[in-house]
Amino acid sequence: MTEKGVGSLFSKILIANRGEIAVRIIRACREMGISSVAVFSEADRESLHASLADESVCIGPALAKDSYLNIPAILSAAVATGAQAIHPGYGLLSENAEFAELCEKCGIAFIGPDADLIRKTGDKDAARRTMREAGVPVVPGCDRIDDPSRLREEADKIGYPLLIKASAGGGGRGIRTVNGPEDLQNAYATASSEAQSAFGDGTVYMEKFLSPVKHIEMQILCDRFGNTVCLGERECSIQRKRQKLLEESPSPAVREETRRKMMDAAVRAARAVNYVNAGTIEFLMDSSGNFYFMEMNTRLQVEHPVTEMVTGIDLVKWQIRIAAGVPLSFHQQDVRTEGHAIECRINAENPKKGFTPGGGKVSFLHVPGGPWVRFDTALYQDYVVPPFYDSMIGKLIVHAQTREEAVRKMQAALGELVIDGVEHNAELQMEILNDPEFKAGNYCTDFIEKRGYA
Amino acid sequence: MTEKGVGSLFSKILIANRGEIAVRIIRACREMGISSVAVFSEADRESLHASLADESVCIGPALAKDSYLNIPAILSAAVATGAQAIHPGYGLLSENAEFAELCEKCGIAFIGPDADLIRKTGDKDAARRTMREAGVPVVPGCDRIDDPSRLREEADKIGYPLLIKASAGGGGRGIRTVNGPEDLQNAYATASSEAQSAFGDGTVYMEKFLSPVKHIEMQILCDRFGNTVCLGERECSIQRKRQKLLEESPSPAVREETRRKMMDAAVRAARAVNYVNAGTIEFLMDSSGNFYFMEMNTRLQVEHPVTEMVTGIDLVKWQIRIAAGVPLSFHQQDVRTEGHAIECRINAENPKKGFTPGGGKVSFLHVPGGPWVRFDTALYQDYVVPPFYDSMIGKLIVHAQTREEAVRKMQAALGELVIDGVEHNAELQMEILNDPEFKAGNYCTDFIEKRGYA
Repeated sequence: MTEKGVGSLFSKILIANRGEIAVRIIRACREMGISSVAVFSEADRESLHASLADESVCIGPALAKDSYLNIPAILSAAVATGAQAIHPGYGLLSENAEFAELCEKCGIAFIGPDADLIRKTGDKDAARRTMREAGVPVVPGCDRIDDPSRLREEADKIGYPLLIKASAGGGGRGIRTVNGPEDLQNAYATASSEAQSAFGDGTVYMEKFLSPVKHIEMQILCDRFGNTVCLGERECSIQRKRQKLLEESPSPAVREETRRKMMDAAVRAARAVNYVNAGTIEFLMDSSGNFYFMEMNTRLQVEHPVTEMVTGIDLVKWQIRIAAGVPLSFHQQDVRTEGHAIECRINAENPKKGFTPGGGKVSFLHVPGGPWVRFDTALYQDYVVPPFYDSMIGKLIVHAQTREEAVRKMQAALGELVIDGVEHNAELQMEILNDPEFKAGNYCTDFIEKRGYA
Repeated sequence: MTEKGVGSLFSKILIANRGEIAVRIIRACREMGISSVAVFSEADRESLHASLADESVCIGPALAKDSYLNIPAILSAAVATGAQAIHPGYGLLSENAEFAELCEKCGIAFIGPDADLIRKTGDKDAARRTMREAGVPVVPGCDRIDDPSRLREEADKIGYPLLIKASAGGGGRGIRTVNGPEDLQNAYATASSEAQSAFGDGTVYMEKFLSPVKHIEMQILCDRFGNTVCLGERECSIQRKRQKLLEESPSPAVREETRRKMMDAAVRAARAVNYVNAGTIEFLMDSSGNFYFMEMNTRLQVEHPVTEMVTGIDLVKWQIRIAAGVPLSFHQQDVRTEGHAIECRINAENPKKGFTPGGGKVSFLHVPGGPWVRFDTALYQDYVVPPFYDSMIGKLIVHAQTREEAVRKMQAALGELVIDGVEHNAELQMEILNDPEFKAGNYCTDFIEKRGYA
């Protein structure tokens, strides 16, 4: 059985990803009556996503660059299996404009915005300028530095500490903190060369380093007919090494008035680039409630489930529908949020040893359950976690009527989770939940660092 | 951390049950900051409920009569561990008035209504009379038959087919169908003797056998302060051998006007007996929307999760709060239902062989997940399902915005469920979901029988 207006457009989707997000997307396909094609590396032969999908295709050796980032192999798999669309998940090729472009050239729908839009927003520096012009507040800073001799002058204008960031950056790479003019040249050189090697583009720009500051992001959903809705915020300030660890929605620190302004700004940001599909506008917010555009992510976020829980809206299904040309069936005024949701990322890593990633065989697995507890994972008992990929092995998500109840539910669920054989960070998550600053809802991006981790 | 106004009343609860419902209650306790005590039989040493609870006590040999129905052993465990309350779950001692009475005599709160109320509503024939007097429509029939010589006269008045039912009945036992006067004496004798041996009371009464008919039940929640709310209905017409197999909420066959009348009747029924705690009023409904009180269950129902999903209200937590003297924090007008929920009971049985129960070792377990999918179970990989207890090994529950989406979600989830090593009924559940009559939402209690099962 296929969904009205969707099945007629896509009958088969290839998922260009692995792990929990591939499983998540396969499930959405199945519920929509759409066949799924998994792709997997040689290291992922025994993976859950490969066995759950209706079809699965090996696309190369273990290392992501040879398989999950191997564009010709993935496109060949799509063509060979007759997939009409590709869902890229997050990470990997999800924000790769070239990939999106090649999909379209092969007559395969890319489930996300089009290549031009990915390019436009992927240039963080250009995006800053676009947003400023659209009246969205941006972090004080300067545009791209083409002439290194102007570095000092611009930096002095911004003031210290500041950040040097790669224009083409993402995932926390190509960023350096500069505490004073003496660090400037060195930070510039390393940020630029890291950016050059990671993204093939050494261009950088500078931003004031706001601290303490909160990372708040807004989820948007835009169809092809100009309908843009904002599904509210996610509080993502609990981070280690600039990567999120725990997210919640709504943010306990965002006042109703600020929320309205931020949602307005997010919708303005999306409209400024004629955004289509699911996207996220990341903001920094200071203790006075001032907020600044940081960047736009043109893909599904890892932490999308907290938004799903409080809004009741399935983001993956809507990504697919939008890509298939279905208009949104609801308007901004129909979006209601209910209760409070928290997500804890479960990573195979040791927080006490600088978050060094681990792996190994899951000798016993017990997943917490019960009402409003969700564990998105690709683990199963006896599965061997391969060492080649991201360390995230699961996302524990809870939903409750109040934040206090959600915190207790998460504590109970974390206490129940058993993943024997693999080192993971559930204990750190428990410490976070028990922390008075966390409980008060008043924490910033320096939370983990302040506690001596990382 | 304990919940306001609750932790101060109960710091420890003993769960007088096993399997998924014991796990469900332990989780609720943990979220409320209440310590849990599990009791287990010798056959349940390796059970999930025994290992999840904060403490656990062996209460006797495998057979339920020696352990889970062994009142002195359970009360001793409660006294020895210092439990302040006992949650009986469903089945077993949950509607045993003597047990409730002895709990109170030991100074231990029974989480449910008091013994008198259990007795009053447990006498199905007396309950019929009480409801009739309260203006709640009851199934046409006659009151208790004390004089068997009046049997024929009363039966002729009711008309055939009719049911002879044990006054003390429950769980589908002590019931006989009578198709004509020639069956009457024999059915009377077997129903009465079955009731005598099962419940220690051979009293029976008669009801018109309404068919085709739907089984619709209403969930109520009443605190000690006279606040009674009705959380809407559950459609429970998919049954095998008078036991429910699949439940949904709301019922696709109940019109809004009928729903209002039925909710009114349920509240009237609860008030007629001064009901306290969670309870269920079971009705039969004919194709014209006429409905008749059948019986009242003074305990949590197996199928309570579908109500939780659509209302967002945690019934187990409220049972505990009410027993602890906490008033309801919401009124009837605050109860809103959202979307559609379905539960499929996963039983270790073979539907093609008369539902003969099975057991065995779970050699591989894969539980479906993702947004709005819940699997309440006490299974884990390598667990051996013991042959001594009820055949239900899990409850798969989904929640979606529409019934159509919920059906598709359940199909996807059932398709994903793997319980290797144990024969179960997931395939039958899939057939039910694919059935045009089920899809149309227009099915009656004869659904399974009509299809050649049972």
